[in-house]
Amino acid sequence: MSAIITLTTDFGFADAYVAAMKGVILGINPEAKIIDICHSIKPQNITQAAFILSTAYPYFSEKTIHLVVVDPEVGTERRAIILKTPLAYFVAPDNGVLSYVIGQSLVKPVMNNGTVSLREKTKPGVDIEVVAITNPKFWRSPVSATFHGRDIFAPVAAALSLGFSPIEFGEPIDSVWMLPLPRSSQWSDGMLVGHILHIDNFGNLITDIKSNNLTLKAEDITIEVGGQFIFGLSGTYAEGSELLALIGSSGYLEISLNGGSASSLLDARMGDEVRLRRQSGANQRTGLFPPA
Amino acid sequence: MSAIITLTTDFGFADAYVAAMKGVILGINPEAKIIDICHSIKPQNITQAAFILSTAYPYFSEKTIHLVVVDPEVGTERRAIILKTPLAYFVAPDNGVLSYVIGQSLVKPVMNNGTVSLREKTKPGVDIEVVAITNPKFWRSPVSATFHGRDIFAPVAAALSLGFSPIEFGEPIDSVWMLPLPRSSQWSDGMLVGHILHIDNFGNLITDIKSNNLTLKAEDITIEVGGQFIFGLSGTYAEGSELLALIGSSGYLEISLNGGSASSLLDARMGDEVRLRRQSGANQRTGLFPPA
Amino acid sequence: MSAIITLTTDFGFADAYVAAMKGVILGINPEAKIIDICHSIKPQNITQAAFILSTAYPYFSEKTIHLVVVDPEVGTERRAIILKTPLAYFVAPDNGVLSYVIGQSLVKPVMNNGTVSLREKTKPGVDIEVVAITNPKFWRSPVSATFHGRDIFAPVAAALSLGFSPIEFGEPIDSVWMLPLPRSSQWSDGMLVGHILHIDNFGNLITDIKSNNLTLKAEDITIEVGGQFIFGLSGTYAEGSELLALIGSSGYLEISLNGGSASSLLDARMGDEVRLRRQSGANQRTGLFPPA
Repeated sequence: MSAIITLTTDFGFADAYVAAMKGVILGINPEAKIIDICHSIKPQNITQAAFILSTAYPYFSEKTIHLVVVDPEVGTERRAIILKTPLAYFVAPDNGVLSYVIGQSLVKPVMNNGTVSLREKTKPGVDIEVVAITNPKFWRSPVSATFHGRDIFAPVAAALSLGFSPIEFGEPIDSVWMLPLPRSSQWSDGMLVGHILHIDNFGNLITDIKSNNLTLKAEDITIEVGGQFIFGLSGTYAEGSELLALIGSSGYLEISLNGGSASSLLDARMGDEVRLRRQSGANQRTGLFPPA
Repeated sequence: MSAIITLTTDFGFADAYVAAMKGVILGINPEAKIIDICHSIKPQNITQAAFILSTAYPYFSEKTIHLVVVDPEVGTERRAIILKTPLAYFVAPDNGVLSYVIGQSLVKPVMNNGTVSLREKTKPGVDIEVVAITNPKFWRSPVSATFHGRDIFAPVAAALSLGFSPIEFGEPIDSVWMLPLPRSSQWSDGMLVGHILHIDNFGNLITDIKSNNLTLKAEDITIEVGGQFIFGLSGTYAEGSELLALIGSSGYLEISLNGGSASSLLDARMGDEVRLRRQSGANQRTGLFPPA
Repeated sequence: MSAIITLTTDFGFADAYVAAMKGVILGINPEAKIIDICHSIKPQNITQAAFILSTAYPYFSEKTIHLVVVDPEVGTERRAIILKTPLAYFVAPDNGVLSYVIGQSLVKPVMNNGTVSLREKTKPGVDIEVVAITNPKFWRSPVSATFHGRDIFAPVAAALSLGFSPIEFGEPIDSVWMLPLPRSSQWSDGMLVGHILHIDNFGNLITDIKSNNLTLKAEDITIEVGGQFIFGLSGTYAEGSELLALIGSSGYLEISLNGGSASSLLDARMGDEVRLRRQSGANQRTGLFPPA
């Protein structure tokens, strides 16, 4: 079966950890198509991995198997899980790295670190299934205490790609570990406060403000970030010669610099505040803020 | 159809942009073989992408589809094109990123930024065809204003790999945007001035001087770069313990340091001058230049 | 034939050298599955490439073809070889880059740089075969003096994947060039001295001390590295909040920092000493060493 298996890890490019996983997968399913999503997750940064995965998996076919190994607690009691959603399969440690994926199926966003009961929280009619990986039948033996990616996750994903169903790998469970999902505050007194969620290869600042929070006319929004003001939203990265804001390709408000790096210009960091105000930039030539 | 689709982008490795494109391609043609050419093009550096592509595409089979997304003007009026040459297909923005590929089919090199009429300039007997991508039938919907790589270029390349012909994607056009192709000056008064075009992973300095400009005997050439002199051409990177010059694997004159980085030694930058003189290095032991 | 061909090079990600090799391979065997092991080997670092290869190849299926191009002497008299072992095929320059692979088949470890006669040194019953690649029939023509990866190694590996046998590519030979294999000293007076062999993406320090040198009880070992002391071995990276030591996933003793980089903390370098002492950490609270 020429199933697709994607890989998201914090293994980087200087070692052979990713290759060892691919060798194991192809040993079990020589027809698997392995696609790298990202291996540059900062070491052990579960939050970043969860976000990056969320920007890629919607573009893969149904039944794609997404293998995620960002696993600071490898070898401890943290569980390993298979998640099946209507769109795809996910194989990962139960440490929150699937929070965005799961969050899309929940009635309400999750606000704190902790376990969530899926039966209670899932939207009606959405069918998601979680299995704790406990059956060693599919694992490599012996299992290294430090590299479950190679010895458990990879062989499980490969066997899944051969058509085994999730339940054959362990026990159905109801609760999973969730990270608080990023969220901007709500509009209040004409202001909305968001944060920088990710800085991409171009120095674009991706914020946690989703396009559906921006129902105003684009020209009626003023944005404050790093001590600078941006008046209105642009349509493309090439509009104007200055700092600009637009809705990026994953639906988040982005801050960008035409022909340069917004991140360098603003010395921006993940987590920095981004403030939106409901007021037009009519006075933008004066450079004064707020406009009189 | 198990066609090959190659990818050349400035997307880097920290995001999932490349993976999203791969997901889209495999959703349309699950049998496509996707090969990465380079994703480390400097952000928005069309010239560098054009060069790197030119060093890779000749080694792929006929009918390979080369997808190039270095696209600073994404979302603006710049056109997207399919180029068909006798060797391959190319899917890219019409911003000059195919200049080397097209240049090989032209009677004369292009000397300025601007549009070129292919009907007028193409070598007799060479069959090249350009289509402006205007038919939204093959695109993802809605099309993001900031990521045509995912929403237009990837699905077009994937559909092309299924056997659709270029004309089904839009309108035939005659003119394309060209960058000035790199060129060293001609020999004049026993001297030729070239420039550093690219610095590779080993610190080798690849110049714009092609081997066919070097019809002299190798030992009759003296090279000046970064204040240093190199007497004669070497055959391999391992000859001598010093700075050396040779004809590299893509046919350009290269400056290299045996066991080290010529780039670091000379603090070299892209664009720096490299001067060739038609005179032998008989006096090289004295270190004096020019030889008496 | 959908054989697997892996690639290990020092070509990095800024150029199209790797892509050119993949283009050549797929031109010869369009069904080959090409898997990257590592392209971040430090330029011309044969020792590092040999180690990285050794941590990946055991996880690939029998008959996988491992292509290794770390080749500072490309174009000189150094030989190119095909090595066939019971587990796999290897195509590489004869410069020591296969030392770990070959070392596993030898009766005794190799202690010096130099050629080794396989007939004399191979373990009884182990069948390994070496061919010098001398038959130009399979090469690209003309062969560049600087890029045998593209013009010799890639087409040879591709042809091998089509089912040609090693002997069709050249002449059988008995001797190969070996690097001294890393080795810690033996226990002596209750002490064993090892060295840092590799620093991975997480800043873990992989030493040349193999688990089979550690037959003591884990709690009876004290480790000194970079002026710090570690008492006993841990089972996982997540044990304790301090510097720790464990047996890593390839069977070597590793020094790690829970949630951080041991390499940064200790300002460690490859080659640095790591000293083991046979004594328990009963006094570890005092921070004194050696315990009274």
